Amino acid sequence: MQTTRIVLASRPVGEPTDDDFRIETVDLPQPGDGQALLQTLFLSLDPYMRGRMSDAPSYAAPVEIGQTMVGATVSRVVEASDRFQPGDVVLGYGGWQSASVESTKHLVKLDPDAAPLSTALGVLGMPGFTAYSGLLTIGQPKEGETVVVAAATGPVGSAVGQIARVKGARAVGIAGGPKKVAYLNELGFDAAIDHRAPDFRDQLKAATPDGVDVYFENVGGAVWDAVAPRLNLYARVPVCGLVSSYNATSLPEGPDRSGQLMGRILTKSLTIRGFIQSEFWPSQHEQFQRDMSSWIADGQVAYREDIVEGLENTVDAFRGLLRGANFGKLIVKVS
Amino acid sequence: MQTTRIVLASRPVGEPTDDDFRIETVDLPQPGDGQALLQTLFLSLDPYMRGRMSDAPSYAAPVEIGQTMVGATVSRVVEASDRFQPGDVVLGYGGWQSASVESTKHLVKLDPDAAPLSTALGVLGMPGFTAYSGLLTIGQPKEGETVVVAAATGPVGSAVGQIARVKGARAVGIAGGPKKVAYLNELGFDAAIDHRAPDFRDQLKAATPDGVDVYFENVGGAVWDAVAPRLNLYARVPVCGLVSSYNATSLPEGPDRSGQLMGRILTKSLTIRGFIQSEFWPSQHEQFQRDMSSWIADGQVAYREDIVEGLENTVDAFRGLLRGANFGKLIVKVS
Repeated sequence: MQTTRIVLASRPVGEPTDDDFRIETVDLPQPGDGQALLQTLFLSLDPYMRGRMSDAPSYAAPVEIGQTMVGATVSRVVEASDRFQPGDVVLGYGGWQSASVESTKHLVKLDPDAAPLSTALGVLGMPGFTAYSGLLTIGQPKEGETVVVAAATGPVGSAVGQIARVKGARAVGIAGGPKKVAYLNELGFDAAIDHRAPDFRDQLKAATPDGVDVYFENVGGAVWDAVAPRLNLYARVPVCGLVSSYNATSLPEGPDRSGQLMGRILTKSLTIRGFIQSEFWPSQHEQFQRDMSSWIADGQVAYREDIVEGLENTVDAFRGLLRGANFGKLIVKVS
Repeated sequence: MQTTRIVLASRPVGEPTDDDFRIETVDLPQPGDGQALLQTLFLSLDPYMRGRMSDAPSYAAPVEIGQTMVGATVSRVVEASDRFQPGDVVLGYGGWQSASVESTKHLVKLDPDAAPLSTALGVLGMPGFTAYSGLLTIGQPKEGETVVVAAATGPVGSAVGQIARVKGARAVGIAGGPKKVAYLNELGFDAAIDHRAPDFRDQLKAATPDGVDVYFENVGGAVWDAVAPRLNLYARVPVCGLVSSYNATSLPEGPDRSGQLMGRILTKSLTIRGFIQSEFWPSQHEQFQRDMSSWIADGQVAYREDIVEGLENTVDAFRGLLRGANFGKLIVKVS
């Protein structure tokens, strides 16, 4: 069996270009013991992938030049193997390609009747769990507190705001453009503001009259600059992503405000805590599956997907993700 | 009765000058109900006082122009009041003056036989408790981990390093000049390095071969810049003070490295947490008194005081404190 795959051809400098990738069709090896041959149905695109294209030190090893880009996938089992039958649908980590051979021990069988298959890559998968674990473990929103989240129509941000409301907190969402802002209002956010609006800082101030108790950090940059002065005493900042800087090729101009940031941490007794969801997975994922499924079932959590057709559109869709061009969880329908 | 007091005459710009203060002798009011008339024996000088001279937003209200500078004091009761007899020695908050009238409900009676009176301002007082609560609650050092602390011969830093060793961690102290470094070795720090040495960064690297798990932040600036890249995955940074920047009048030149700091927090899953000891006082100060007294008694924690004679030398001594000129807990012997 063959796979059509997108490999990293060179390390992007700034925004990834088409030349940084190569699309190629090759033969897959025969699956060995403990492996399964899979056909990709859905591929998840997530901001963390920009980090894997770079060899800067990070929490995960970079993708090597010539290797297939990594990514979570929902796939159909083609050939029976130890634990799976042909036709079974599984969550795996097949990467940017149309078929894969994967170790079966990392595969999770999905029930197509329980929830739409693509949700395993979004609200019921890694992004949903990122929101759940980071918000509840680090953010710890209390009733009546104000929780602010940016990239709020994305799969992480929208879950953060809605879970905050489940916990009795006030949810303030930040997004780019009036359509996304309107969607946040639909989702029941207590306030929704547009970071592209010229009066963004004033809008933020008006939306957070009692300051900010939890800021769930997805984006960094200008949004963080606007939120930071509004953080209350003992505010918590789970740092989940900094997508606004992922394509940066140099540090911004001065003055150097890193000391000012430390000063704010000191005078406001802030907690700023970076995390990757895998830290909390072993202890919390079962509770997450139960909680999130029930919140979806009773309408407390809604979700939105932005599905792109065809593997050949992956690179373009990924570039859009870093600019906020997607609207909802970005997924490539591969076959 | 009269008091000679040092009042804030103007808000310092940069390093405080003599002109920012006025020394004056005035009549004290008669103590009313629930008040005591006190003669100051010892006045504590601490870096946080620089913040109180400024009206920038902070965790505590500034000292107003014309008001006596604040500070913890050990004093002798002059006139009997509800709970105290003349001659009793108490810990209070009399400020930079020779006598005071204070509300008795904030006074704590000291036992002159239990420990030298001045220790109530240092190792057994606020600085010791700052080290204890910040290190154990936020830093959470585990056996075999590496704890780094700067201003390590000061009352907070020296306690941090020694408590880290009590808990089985490796203590690395940073101080300015060979005398202070030699003292850290005497105290039993596992490594001691001089931030004024031209090869400071190399020394730090050699002293932390396994990276840094806890950095107790007292100083900021160049020391933080050197430590930050050595922080391990899941490292904890209790932010207690940033004395190197307290006299700063403008932000340092660029580039702006605040985003780089957020990036490091993300990729290393760091916890950076500002605190003021008062947050932990209600729940922890009794345990602190027991632990610290026993560690001093059995020689696990030693302390050093730098005692300046005479209230008239207070401003000069305080300026020295911000430059690291003191060697041990800085205390003014007032009478």
